[in-house]
Amino acid sequence: MRPEVLRELSRVTDSRILLCVLDGLGGLARPETGRSELEEADTPNLDILARRSALGLTHPVGPGITPGSGPGHLALFGFDPEEYNIGRGVLEATGIDFDLGPHDVAARGNFCTVDADGRITDRRAGRIATELSAPIVARLNEIRVDGVEIIVRPVKDHRFVLILRGEGLSDRVRDTDPQAVGVGPLPAQPYVPDDEASVRTATVVNRFAAEAAKLLAGEPQANMMTLRGFAAYPNLPSMQDLYKLDPAAFAVYPMYRGLAKLVGMRAYASGHAFADSVAALGEHWDSGHTFFFLHFKPTDAAGEDGDFERKVQAIEEFDSHLEGILDLKPDVLVVTGDHSTPALMAAHSWHPVPFLLHSDNVRVDDRAEGFSETRCGAGSLGTFLAKDTLTLAMAHAGKLTKYGA
Amino acid sequence: MRPEVLRELSRVTDSRILLCVLDGLGGLARPETGRSELEEADTPNLDILARRSALGLTHPVGPGITPGSGPGHLALFGFDPEEYNIGRGVLEATGIDFDLGPHDVAARGNFCTVDADGRITDRRAGRIATELSAPIVARLNEIRVDGVEIIVRPVKDHRFVLILRGEGLSDRVRDTDPQAVGVGPLPAQPYVPDDEASVRTATVVNRFAAEAAKLLAGEPQANMMTLRGFAAYPNLPSMQDLYKLDPAAFAVYPMYRGLAKLVGMRAYASGHAFADSVAALGEHWDSGHTFFFLHFKPTDAAGEDGDFERKVQAIEEFDSHLEGILDLKPDVLVVTGDHSTPALMAAHSWHPVPFLLHSDNVRVDDRAEGFSETRCGAGSLGTFLAKDTLTLAMAHAGKLTKYGA
Repeated sequence: MRPEVLRELSRVTDSRILLCVLDGLGGLARPETGRSELEEADTPNLDILARRSALGLTHPVGPGITPGSGPGHLALFGFDPEEYNIGRGVLEATGIDFDLGPHDVAARGNFCTVDADGRITDRRAGRIATELSAPIVARLNEIRVDGVEIIVRPVKDHRFVLILRGEGLSDRVRDTDPQAVGVGPLPAQPYVPDDEASVRTATVVNRFAAEAAKLLAGEPQANMMTLRGFAAYPNLPSMQDLYKLDPAAFAVYPMYRGLAKLVGMRAYASGHAFADSVAALGEHWDSGHTFFFLHFKPTDAAGEDGDFERKVQAIEEFDSHLEGILDLKPDVLVVTGDHSTPALMAAHSWHPVPFLLHSDNVRVDDRAEGFSETRCGAGSLGTFLAKDTLTLAMAHAGKLTKYGA
Repeated sequence: MRPEVLRELSRVTDSRILLCVLDGLGGLARPETGRSELEEADTPNLDILARRSALGLTHPVGPGITPGSGPGHLALFGFDPEEYNIGRGVLEATGIDFDLGPHDVAARGNFCTVDADGRITDRRAGRIATELSAPIVARLNEIRVDGVEIIVRPVKDHRFVLILRGEGLSDRVRDTDPQAVGVGPLPAQPYVPDDEASVRTATVVNRFAAEAAKLLAGEPQANMMTLRGFAAYPNLPSMQDLYKLDPAAFAVYPMYRGLAKLVGMRAYASGHAFADSVAALGEHWDSGHTFFFLHFKPTDAAGEDGDFERKVQAIEEFDSHLEGILDLKPDVLVVTGDHSTPALMAAHSWHPVPFLLHSDNVRVDDRAEGFSETRCGAGSLGTFLAKDTLTLAMAHAGKLTKYGA
């Protein structure tokens, strides 16, 4: 459905939607057992819930498309990930709780090691520890290029964020990171040679790089830096504006809180473990919000590490919290993932993602024997695009009026 | 996914995708047995493969749309058949290995028999044999209409192709074939009366028709001709350009080779029977191509003839070649059709088409009991648009990078 129509159809009600995102939930069966992580996991609570829910599978972006974290979540928040994309630089900035402004262009920075000829010998400067890199970042933060405010913030280890703040900047600038060793960092170049803002931004970046080279020259490891993923502040409509929701986010990792903030969610302090996030959710459950996003990271982390057993345990950990989550009595509960991260692949993948929607008025797949890729694939919701998740949830929450007379 | 995004995501790898198209594969159950052609067929190899594959159904163009061969194949090659269409004339020209140029307009020609009053008595001139029609075609090829090069080439039996070559021509010209007996061929007319190129083209066609009438007057059967499906050269992007694939086609029938060539495939000599095509595929398997299109015609031919049993046998014939095909060890194997041709309807139809994708990293529908419309309808891939086939195949072949950060 087109956003402008959804905006017309949506209405404010007190009902509450809870979206639980198990990051990288979808998996692949181990050949030895024929069972995926979710099928291997002992999930008594999810299995009971599945029999009282509608099941399906989602394509986060589209068939065959492997999404990054940005598109995977934007889709679940009701935004077409083909239309809206969030650049790497913005994700990195949101990931350290840096509040980007409308005139900001952000880029991901990497410290690297170069030899006497300026050729990169280590793209990550020996994965220099944050304690060592943070003071260097502080020195980069002192660099001034006239007319443009320059902000440099540490992320973790060899990673930092560069933010250029000023009027007339553009993110249509190519990476300086050559993504290879044996060559020097590339000069920043505008995508389009005669675009004034891109040319200006590239010039600023190159001056910054030249100053950084001088400042870093004496460092044993981090004696140079590269930049990639230049991205301007994305002007996303808010969930308030599009869907008349009052949304709140609970996530341990700053990047997911940042993503949520970009679409208008209030992001709450969510502690260091999932139990903390669940507790924070409980505390703010009655504070007037009508949409709650609860993020669970360990499934993806284990999947990315290729650790099948740990992903199984992560799913079981989530399952153990489900009773507490259900005690909140959300009018609509969705349990799904932002994409698949099969442990067998140790990476994000394109495989459709298990999806479960529970509410009083849902048409239940009561013959489902539990919650898994296979069972969801046979679910009554079929295989659909993740961007339809919010509309489905709102419908079941009584938040969408009739379309047409 | 938008083509420009797919172009960004696609990357060159050595992995090989094999797309087997069983033309007109989809069928309908006979009321007496409740079994479709595919369900009636004894297909041990497909059944085993199905259990190690992901299954689904495809809409070649969209729900309820019956496709011709052009859209059905274009979709499988990764082109939106709503956006790109190939006219009949172009299909016929490609079908005889005629290489159209950018200033060509082609039309399908039929010899017909007319009575003394010029009314058509046989739309196909008694299906006059090629040996008899080819010399007549050669005479038509001598016709000159000033300023426009006229090329006439035999196809088979009563069929030929007319190509008009010159600047300022248009394919917006109506058929001269009335698709009926008892009436005379129609004059060519421009779609839009005041479009200069269309008017000029119609005038050229009518002069050609007048000359042809004189030349053919003495023929016992083929004493007139009709034209239909005027079509200009389609400027399709290539699979190389859009998807960075190096594609090859193996098809007995020239039309399918022609279709493949229009999207950049190298079309190889593929013999007269499917076994020849499989052999040719094997010979060229290691020649550097990364995408292989293997076409199987007998399913459609039997379906079009309304011959249920022969379609069953055709499916069994394909099945008998499957082991040899699997021996090539494609990284991704897709078995599907370009549309349904139920023998019960003796025509192309809109019914969704069985789809099977096999690869090492596929999420298998291991509870599938075989390969059929019903089983594919319960498959984990759901019912999707055929234009997503290539994206799915490329994902499983590791040829698509992540979308978004």
